[in-house]
Amino acid sequence: MLRDDEEIDALNINGFNIIQHKSKFKFGMDAVLLANFVYTKRGDKIVDLGSGTGIIPILIAAKSKDTYIIGIEIQKDMADMANRSILINELNDRISILNKDIRNIEKIIGNEKYDIVTANPPYLSFRSGFLKKDLSENISRYELNGKLEDFVKTTWRLLKFGGKFFMVHRADRIVDVLCTLRNYDLEPKKIQFVQPNKDERPNIMLIECKKGAKPGLTFMKPMYIYKNDGEYTEELLEIYNKTSIEEV
Amino acid sequence: MLRDDEEIDALNINGFNIIQHKSKFKFGMDAVLLANFVYTKRGDKIVDLGSGTGIIPILIAAKSKDTYIIGIEIQKDMADMANRSILINELNDRISILNKDIRNIEKIIGNEKYDIVTANPPYLSFRSGFLKKDLSENISRYELNGKLEDFVKTTWRLLKFGGKFFMVHRADRIVDVLCTLRNYDLEPKKIQFVQPNKDERPNIMLIECKKGAKPGLTFMKPMYIYKNDGEYTEELLEIYNKTSIEEV
Repeated sequence: MLRDDEEIDALNINGFNIIQHKSKFKFGMDAVLLANFVYTKRGDKIVDLGSGTGIIPILIAAKSKDTYIIGIEIQKDMADMANRSILINELNDRISILNKDIRNIEKIIGNEKYDIVTANPPYLSFRSGFLKKDLSENISRYELNGKLEDFVKTTWRLLKFGGKFFMVHRADRIVDVLCTLRNYDLEPKKIQFVQPNKDERPNIMLIECKKGAKPGLTFMKPMYIYKNDGEYTEELLEIYNKTSIEEV
Repeated sequence: MLRDDEEIDALNINGFNIIQHKSKFKFGMDAVLLANFVYTKRGDKIVDLGSGTGIIPILIAAKSKDTYIIGIEIQKDMADMANRSILINELNDRISILNKDIRNIEKIIGNEKYDIVTANPPYLSFRSGFLKKDLSENISRYELNGKLEDFVKTTWRLLKFGGKFFMVHRADRIVDVLCTLRNYDLEPKKIQFVQPNKDERPNIMLIECKKGAKPGLTFMKPMYIYKNDGEYTEELLEIYNKTSIEEV
């Protein structure tokens, strides 16, 4: 189940674990914040676009009951690793990882059938920075295989009318993000900014959208990661310590 | 110079005063924050859309040198009051108030001639709330004479290429605001959120745009109005206490 260059890391929820490459792209705080931001109801059918290690499907499965999640991941190695994480957590009846491109995925898994789509897409536009040597890092960080618009367009195709899209993205991409969402009739309904602390600028944003909804947005209070003394805030610790929400 | 139902209020800058109606719409904190957010260079030609009492032109004139400001105000009584405030402050060589509709104002004051446009437009869409009895209040608060898009379209017509647009608006209109700005090639370059305090949601936003610029946004750190003890923050007090920045 585990290759030499991989490790098993414990997730602080339901005793679940996750397999990650020892030195390559690991899941980050953004994925944890997104999974925490998502809320589901029993029976929800969910698609996670660009699943990477499978962290978001695993965390959503851990905090919900009777939800069924398909994770789409274009990188073969990543998808394989995510599949093995699903197996070691015995989540294979609730989560499937497909090693596919998100573009046109609805031809495989069906149009307008899903209640929820989630995405922690690559944040950086292709032109915006130096590409690191490792291709896998690049695919996870840069818009090489799927730009923001591809993620949004795919979401629009997958969601039922009234279905919800939960996304995390860089705060400074807000103009691109909001305009693209509205163009695809995924109306932003809630935004939460995340700041390193109260004296710094927002760097991450969490967005909840609803397909076909009328305009009308609610801001949530910002989330702060660190207190003034450099310790994590209670709010963040609570998110990381939700050890057992429901039995699966 | 002063009618029975009016009063003169001191502005804490350059000894300037402003005439306001005793019981009707008075300038608010938003206008002060916007004027503080604006920065100018010598010789700038500026238009303020929907000037109301003239507060924004007066504050900008107070904090800058050699700037020339045209304020557009559709309400006759308001424009008249603003004009008298300009006179008592001896600013009539730098500020002109025109009692006109902002829509098509470029036919009177000229296309693509201005370095800066400012606006503190009505925040509420027509359908969004109960209209108070007083028509003047309604014109200042609701999108009766000029919707967001009219303000943005007019700004695009007035600004030189590379000219700047500074606007204050409600944070929860952010999707409308950012998408409309981008549609009119006024690319948002800076955003600052204003929150009552660090534990509440943002309610106001300050936006700086540049005509014809490429995408690329910088968030500023949020501004907090109150400290935890309910007192004003030092930051806000400093804005209100900039008593004398430059001699005019």
